[in-house]
Amino acid sequence: MTNPLIPDLPSLQDPALAAALQRRIDQKTKPLGSLGRLEALMLRLGLILGSEAPCLVEPQLIVFAGDHGLAARGVSAYPSDVSWQMVENFLAGGAAVSVLARQHGLALTVVDAGVAHDFAPRPGLVVAKIAPGTADSAGGPAMSAAQCTQAIARGREIVGQRPGNALLLGEMGIGNTSAAALLLARLAGIEIGQCTGRGTGLDDAQLQRKTAILAGVLRLHEHAVEPLDALAAFGGFEIAMMVGAVLQAALERRVIVVDGFISSAAVLVAARLRPALLERCVFAHCSNERAHRAMLAALGAEPLLDLGLRLGEGSGAALAWPLLQSACRILAEMASFDSAGVSGPR
Amino acid sequence: MTNPLIPDLPSLQDPALAAALQRRIDQKTKPLGSLGRLEALMLRLGLILGSEAPCLVEPQLIVFAGDHGLAARGVSAYPSDVSWQMVENFLAGGAAVSVLARQHGLALTVVDAGVAHDFAPRPGLVVAKIAPGTADSAGGPAMSAAQCTQAIARGREIVGQRPGNALLLGEMGIGNTSAAALLLARLAGIEIGQCTGRGTGLDDAQLQRKTAILAGVLRLHEHAVEPLDALAAFGGFEIAMMVGAVLQAALERRVIVVDGFISSAAVLVAARLRPALLERCVFAHCSNERAHRAMLAALGAEPLLDLGLRLGEGSGAALAWPLLQSACRILAEMASFDSAGVSGPR
Repeated sequence: MTNPLIPDLPSLQDPALAAALQRRIDQKTKPLGSLGRLEALMLRLGLILGSEAPCLVEPQLIVFAGDHGLAARGVSAYPSDVSWQMVENFLAGGAAVSVLARQHGLALTVVDAGVAHDFAPRPGLVVAKIAPGTADSAGGPAMSAAQCTQAIARGREIVGQRPGNALLLGEMGIGNTSAAALLLARLAGIEIGQCTGRGTGLDDAQLQRKTAILAGVLRLHEHAVEPLDALAAFGGFEIAMMVGAVLQAALERRVIVVDGFISSAAVLVAARLRPALLERCVFAHCSNERAHRAMLAALGAEPLLDLGLRLGEGSGAALAWPLLQSACRILAEMASFDSAGVSGPR
Repeated sequence: MTNPLIPDLPSLQDPALAAALQRRIDQKTKPLGSLGRLEALMLRLGLILGSEAPCLVEPQLIVFAGDHGLAARGVSAYPSDVSWQMVENFLAGGAAVSVLARQHGLALTVVDAGVAHDFAPRPGLVVAKIAPGTADSAGGPAMSAAQCTQAIARGREIVGQRPGNALLLGEMGIGNTSAAALLLARLAGIEIGQCTGRGTGLDDAQLQRKTAILAGVLRLHEHAVEPLDALAAFGGFEIAMMVGAVLQAALERRVIVVDGFISSAAVLVAARLRPALLERCVFAHCSNERAHRAMLAALGAEPLLDLGLRLGEGSGAALAWPLLQSACRILAEMASFDSAGVSGPR
C-alpha cells in the first residue's frame, strides 16, 4: 500500500551484520552474556545504524505539544493552560526535560503542534500549529483527515530538517493520556477500563469518570478502526506529529528512543502502519501510567528502565540515554580476550 | 559495642531536612510523585549529604580484587589467572568498567586486596595485598581473624585517603560468587541451594557441584555465625576490604553506590554490624546472578536498574551513576510552579 505520507520501511534484518556484532560482543573481556540487556541494545543499535561500531551523533530530543478538546470534560487533574505554560517552562530551561537535556547534551526542540496559545517566536521553538487544540472527541472526530495528514507531514518535515542519527521523543498536552488510552483500546483491542489511568493524578472518582467518558468516545467512533482513522478520531495533534516524526526517523535509520505512554501510543499507530518501524525503536522505560505495561506488551517492547516515572516530556527517554551511549562505547572501546591477554573459560 | 575497627554510625534520620526536601520536590513543575523512584533517590541523596541541594563531587569508583583458595575446587567457569589478567585490563582501560568510568568521569582505582600475582606499581593501582589469595574455605577459614581485621582497616584507609563524597563499589575475583553466596546463606539464613548461582557461566552440572561444595563449606564453619567470623571463614580479601571501605564511606557521609552480588555481600556484612549503613547506600541494580534479588530483599534494598547484568567490576554502579546526577540536577535546577508561573491541579 503505497502512500506518499507513510513511507515504506525496509526491514533491517541483516544476518551477516548481526552475526558480526554478536561475535564482537562475545569477544569482549567479560563472561558470555554478562552485560545482559545492554548486549541486546548493542545489537539493536548496530543494526539500526548499520555498523559494527555504531556511534550516536547529535541526538535530537523533540517535545511535541498540543491541546485536547476533550480536556474541557475534566479528564485531567490539570487545566489546559498548563500545556502552554509548560512549553514556556521547557523553553526557559526549568522543566525536568530541560535539565536532563542539558545534562546529557541533547539538542532540545519544542514543537507547537496545536497548543491553544500564541507563542512568541524564539530559538528552540518550532511553531507548527495545526489548530489551537483538537476538537472534542466526545462530540466528533478530534481532527479532520486533512489535519491528520498535515500533522503527520509536518512531523516528518521537522525530523528531516534536523541533524544527527537519534531521535528522542517527548510530548506535552493536558488530556493526552486520554487520547493515548483510546488509541490503545482501539488498536490493540484492550478493554477501555484497562487502558485508562490516573494521568497527572486523578483520584478514584475522577478516574471512574474519565473511564466512563472514554468509553463513550470509543463507542461514538466505533467505525474508526484503521490506524489513521483512529488517530484522527481521538487525537491529538502532538501524537499525529510524533507519528510523522518516527516514520521519518525510521526512514532515515535514526535510532528512535521512545519515552512513556503517549509517545508509545504514537509508535503504536505508526507500527500498525509500518511494523518494521519497531526495529528502529529503543523503549526507554515502563511508565507508572496504568496501561503502559500493556501497551509495551502490545508492541513487543522491553523497556530499559522501570522507575515508576509518569511525567512525559521525554524525561524517561533522556534518563535512559546514557545507557545507549554506554552500549556504543563498550562496543567501540572495550578490549577483546585476545587483545587484553585474558584467559577464556576453562 | 565499641570497636575501633567498626565505627559507630549515627542515623541520618532528620525529619526537618526530609520535610524540606519533600517540599522542594513537590514544588517542582511536575505532577506530584511523577518522577517516581527518582524522587526517593533525591530524598536519600539529600539526607546522606545533609543538603536540600545535594551535589555529587569527585566520585570514586574503587575496584577491589582478590583471589580465592576455594577456586581450586572448580567453583568457577574461569581459571584464577583471570583475576590478575582483569586487573591489568582495568588498568589498561579495556574492561567494561574502564569504559564506563571514562564515560561518566569516575575516578577509577584498582586495589589489589589479595590477588595471587605481583603487579608492577603504576598510577591507578593500590597494592594492599593481605596475602596472595585466601586459603581454601573447604579446608579451614579463608583468612585468619587478624587478616580479616587488617583487610577491613586497609579498606577504611583507602577510602579515607580519597577525595569526594561518593563511593562506587566494584570487585574482581574468580570464585567470589561462592564467598558471597556463603555469606548470604549464613547471615540471612537462606538455604545454600537458593544462594548459589552460575557466576561467570556454570552449566547445570557445574552448578550442582558448586552447590554441593558450598554446602560442605557451610557445614565446616557452622560456628561462624557472627558477621566478622563468617567473613573470615568464607572470604575473600576483596570482600573484607569492601566492608571496611563502606564503613569508612558511611562514617564520612559519602554516598555508597552498591554494584552487584559481591558488593552487596560486603554491604550485608557491614549492615549486620552497623544497620545505619544502609541509609547511606544506593543500590545500583539487580543482577542476574541468581540470589541477588534475595540478597537485596534481605537488605530491604530497591535497586535502580534491572538489566540482567552479571559482570561485577562496578559496571552496574557505573551504569546507574547518571541517575544519581540527574536526581541532584533536578533538585538544583528544575523550576517550581511559582517561579515558572505554571498552574497547579484544579
